[in-house]
Amino acid sequence: MSLSVIETPAAVVDVARMQRNIARMQDRMNALGVTFRPHVKTTKCVAVADRQRAAGANGITVSTLREAEEFFAAGYDDILYAVCIAPHRLRRAQGLRDQGCRLKILVDSVEAALAVVEAQSHRDPFEVLIEVDTDGHRSGVGPEDERLIEIGRILHAGGATLCGVLTHAGNSYELNDPEALERLAEQERTLSVRAAERLRAAGLPCPVVSVGSTPTALSARALDGVTEVRCGVYVFFDLFMTNVGVCAIDDIALSVLTTVVGHQSEKGWIIVDAGWMAMSRDRGTARQRHDYGYGIACDLEGHLLKGDLVMIAANQEHGILAATNGRLISLENRFPIGTRLRILPNHACATGAQFSEYHAATGNGIETWRRFNGW
Amino acid sequence: MSLSVIETPAAVVDVARMQRNIARMQDRMNALGVTFRPHVKTTKCVAVADRQRAAGANGITVSTLREAEEFFAAGYDDILYAVCIAPHRLRRAQGLRDQGCRLKILVDSVEAALAVVEAQSHRDPFEVLIEVDTDGHRSGVGPEDERLIEIGRILHAGGATLCGVLTHAGNSYELNDPEALERLAEQERTLSVRAAERLRAAGLPCPVVSVGSTPTALSARALDGVTEVRCGVYVFFDLFMTNVGVCAIDDIALSVLTTVVGHQSEKGWIIVDAGWMAMSRDRGTARQRHDYGYGIACDLEGHLLKGDLVMIAANQEHGILAATNGRLISLENRFPIGTRLRILPNHACATGAQFSEYHAATGNGIETWRRFNGW
Repeated sequence: MSLSVIETPAAVVDVARMQRNIARMQDRMNALGVTFRPHVKTTKCVAVADRQRAAGANGITVSTLREAEEFFAAGYDDILYAVCIAPHRLRRAQGLRDQGCRLKILVDSVEAALAVVEAQSHRDPFEVLIEVDTDGHRSGVGPEDERLIEIGRILHAGGATLCGVLTHAGNSYELNDPEALERLAEQERTLSVRAAERLRAAGLPCPVVSVGSTPTALSARALDGVTEVRCGVYVFFDLFMTNVGVCAIDDIALSVLTTVVGHQSEKGWIIVDAGWMAMSRDRGTARQRHDYGYGIACDLEGHLLKGDLVMIAANQEHGILAATNGRLISLENRFPIGTRLRILPNHACATGAQFSEYHAATGNGIETWRRFNGW
Repeated sequence: MSLSVIETPAAVVDVARMQRNIARMQDRMNALGVTFRPHVKTTKCVAVADRQRAAGANGITVSTLREAEEFFAAGYDDILYAVCIAPHRLRRAQGLRDQGCRLKILVDSVEAALAVVEAQSHRDPFEVLIEVDTDGHRSGVGPEDERLIEIGRILHAGGATLCGVLTHAGNSYELNDPEALERLAEQERTLSVRAAERLRAAGLPCPVVSVGSTPTALSARALDGVTEVRCGVYVFFDLFMTNVGVCAIDDIALSVLTTVVGHQSEKGWIIVDAGWMAMSRDRGTARQRHDYGYGIACDLEGHLLKGDLVMIAANQEHGILAATNGRLISLENRFPIGTRLRILPNHACATGAQFSEYHAATGNGIETWRRFNGW
């Protein structure tokens, strides 16, 4: 099996790049003195998580109970479900615990804390973290909010195991300056540690302080008071992250293999068989310093093509590539029908989700790594 | 089974609305005197195609050979693969024909025509259409281009069955004015008929003139010279199509069922468990007259909520809903944690693709309809 014969479009993983990304993050976490709990939502692939674990990761983070169930079945039993739980899902969460999974759940409201206490069994109380909002971008209770203590008291008095606090500085995705990223990483740290200290001052247990996003994990100078870091997209990186400034283009380990199916020579267009169904509809780089359309093309070996061939438009199963320098190079000669190219994606989480498997290029051939979707 | 108990997020089909959309299009095609070949790429669901066929559709259109194989296995044997074929796929296409599938393939270049003639068996020649570019938006050879005749001659002389010409006026998606849509539909008609006449004048067969897109199909006044129409998204419609002006919001038959998991009351935000993994990353309405974010919220019965609650942002498994009138209504009281809502999507093709099944609300309960993805 080789990239010149498998069906296209296909999601290709450059395993050497991925291993380099895994080692870079794990080394950093070791140096900062925290445990690392990778977020498997990016890949939903046991073969990838196995390599993260082999490098030193402790436990995993998931975004759905489906991920928790799939990874538990694959031998992962220390799982943090990092989305505030909907009460109707508590029974399914309990089902995982009943089978021996050390599942940790998340809340950020009095309502949800009451639902957890109401639903739990006295034999096996839920392990719960409280989500803290450290940058205003999404969920979580403020570190100074009175509800933080109220939620902690409800859980603790109700018999749940209060594990600690969790935050995700998602605003890091909006930045592209190393100093601003370092400041946000420090803000993520200080505000989550502050929340933990308030809980402890109220006589509540708070052993865990869990933080993370790929940009802040790679920008923090120190993580005093933090016990663990979570992040996901670093394992593949993507064009969005190059614009944030935390990786280079040749760190990107995921690409979409595609075949040239036509040309519009007068316009300088190459038509390929990877459209948005393969790339995803993610146009995250549109609002960044460098807009890569739906992705940028490499040759079959993964080297960027001269002249920067960008996917300027995508229909469901058609992508349109054009040279960003606008030169109408002789496309039909350079890239005849049947030519295979690899497109680096804007967002590895979204592009991966369009596929049911990765084709992992190991250097010694291609392995097929299953991935899954759904809830 | 009811929408108040199934796991969220889920893709819900309002079957009554879908049947109304199917009848509207089929009635129109009957009145215009053309056969109708629905594009099943929107739904990739046999249960939906069965209803389109029952209403009078003749054959189906597909965007991948995977669709062709799945639908052939489900009893569909008249299949048009409407993406210009990559030469490496000709063997797989032949495999379908060998099993009895009347698969039609598409080319728009001399190179691909030569590859078809080279690959085909004399026992069972390929049935081929030539893609014609009638609006400059993507693929196809121009109706006046000399290559049109050259491609026709290569196919015909090489023993292939030259079925005719095909076009797709994809620029209709950029319009929102009934007169402009009608003009584009007429342009799609006249230019494809012109291409057919040129082939016939050159002594080549051209029985089929196949056109289509949902907006032009619903805007054409007459289709003289056209033999068949293809389109797909009309079966569900979506917010994008309401902005184009070819449907109303209460024609939209697809929605994403979601559960409220949190609030940020000070900001007027409701956090739900449908993020971009459920809605897709499609932000097509961003550049239209009404930007619906990632979708607009309805109650469990499918009625729009007062104040227009729009998904203003989405992370992988989180959506943020906010009232577009900016009023900080008492969200926690109106939509407590656990509340279920339905989100109408920007783009039914992209949102459907995020799911492996539809939950079809028939009025008498919920049926599970399998859908598939992949290539």
